[in-house]
Parts: sequence; C-alpha cells; structure tokens
Amino acid sequence: MIVLGIDPGLANTGFGVVQRRGSTLLALDGGVIATAAGGELPDRIRRIHQAVADLLDHYRPDALAMESLYFGKNASSALLVGQARGVALLAAAQRGVPCSDYTPQQIKGAVCGRGGADKGQVQRMVQALLRLPEPPAPDHAADALAAAICHANHAPLRAALPA
Amino acid sequence: MIVLGIDPGLANTGFGVVQRRGSTLLALDGGVIATAAGGELPDRIRRIHQAVADLLDHYRPDALAMESLYFGKNASSALLVGQARGVALLAAAQRGVPCSDYTPQQIKGAVCGRGGADKGQVQRMVQALLRLPEPPAPDHAADALAAAICHANHAPLRAALPA
Repeated sequence: MIVLGIDPGLANTGFGVVQRRGSTLLALDGGVIATAAGGELPDRIRRIHQAVADLLDHYRPDALAMESLYFGKNASSALLVGQARGVALLAAAQRGVPCSDYTPQQIKGAVCGRGGADKGQVQRMVQALLRLPEPPAPDHAADALAAAICHANHAPLRAALPA
Repeated sequence: MIVLGIDPGLANTGFGVVQRRGSTLLALDGGVIATAAGGELPDRIRRIHQAVADLLDHYRPDALAMESLYFGKNASSALLVGQARGVALLAAAQRGVPCSDYTPQQIKGAVCGRGGADKGQVQRMVQALLRLPEPPAPDHAADALAAAICHANHAPLRAALPA
C-alpha cells in the first residue's frame, strides 16, 4: 500500500509518499510544492494542482491523506489553505484515488502515541518510523509524511473490521 | 466582452454570465451549481470544477470575476468556501482566462452606487441593470451576476488608463 500525504498551503504545500510493506513503513518521497508569493493566485493554484497530479501519476498511491480540520488564526488564512486543499482533493478525485482525512490529534496519536505531541516530537517520530537519516524538514513535509503514516497504519485495521 | 461571475460555495456556487455591448449589459446565463450535502467532499469539489469548466468552454468569457475577500463567521466555513474557490480559479487558469477579484464594497458600489447596500438592493439593481423580468434568485446567482457586472463596468475604464 502506498499513501500520499498532503499538508496544503498556498505558499508551501507539503507532500510525503509512504509505502507500507507488512509492518514496515518506507518513505518514497517527501518535500514541498512552493509557489512564489509574487505570483498570480490562479497560477499558484494551478501549479499546486499540477504538482499533486504529477505525484499521483508517478507513485499511483492507493490513497491520499490529509488533516481534516484547520485551526488557523483567522478566516483569511483558512480561505487560502482551502484553495490549495481543494485543488489537491480535485487531483485525487479526477484519478479515482480515495481521500481520507484525520484530525491533528489522530495524526499525532498515530505517530507519537499521544494527540498532544509537539512539532519536534512529530518530526523525530516520523524520522524514527521511516528510518530517515535526519528529521524530515521543513515542517510541511514532516506533517505530510505524518498524515501518510497515520493512514498507512489505520487502513489495515479498517479493512480488517467486519463490514 | 463576456464576463463569468462566480460566488463560490461548497453546497451552492452561484454563477452569472454577463455580456457587455457598448453601454448595454445583457445576462446570458445565471444560476447555481449545487452539490449534495451527503456527497463525498472530493466528488463535490470535482463537480464544481467540472461545472465551472463547462461554463468557461460554453461561453468563452474574457474574464472570470469574484469577490476578493471572505468575511465569514469562522475559519471552518472559510476553508469550505476556499476549496470551491480554488477549483473555480483553477478551471480559469487552465484555460488562460484572466481572473479579477473585487471587494464586496466595490461590487456593491458598481451595482448600487454605494458600498453599504443590502442584499435586497443588490438583487433589485442587478434586475434593473440586466432588465430581468424579476430579481435574480437565489442570492448566490444574484451575487455572481453582481460580480460579473462589476467587472464588465470596470474593465473598460481600466483598459483606458495609461499603462
């Protein structure tokens, strides 16, 4: 099973591709889709859509995973995040890739064992679980990998539940 | 000049197509792209993107116009609006259609002559300017037509300004 985790944002959209083989997790890719602050909004949104589409076409993941809720400071920043989130979900829907979302608490719980873990703990646990040589950076890439790990470790349990 | 106005929303995205011929404004189309509340989020977003794309392909507008800012109640609803807004902008960007946004005050000012006009005044003035048999409904369609009128009446002035 391959999972594409996405941490959407207009300036920086984090991505992480995680493969699960039995009980082993493997990082296939991770990084950030950056758009220039001076660029036109439609062009920036198009770039995010195209980059997520390219990741989906390249890795052919079984699922896309992201955080469900946005506890941002204000409605303006949520509107910007929403635009990036929308085109990422669109790219998945256009390819029939199912999307799952998880609360920040679920993601931290899946990665660190407790929902109240801080950013540093998440980065260190993502590093440990994926046996990376150093903590993933920047934050957006680490958060995207954490979302992907959360899904990869939840999905087998879900599939095992009686329908 | 043909302008597609969009009032984005997850459940209801208003649209209005306005043509300007000299000093005359003509409504070519208007209505709402509705998505079922029980549907999966990626499917709803895909439907909005496809419907806006179909409008762009059918009417081949010179511009897409929408409100610039969202003064919603909270970050959660702004996130939902942002997802719809993002895929509408994407459809325009994918076709090379330029996007303009206007503040609610600019739109109300262009339609009603003052930025503090209420929803009823906007609906009545949109009806009068486009010589419609009755006020456009629902609200989302009226707001989309108002954004299109705002752009149609601003753009010639803009084009006439020295570069």
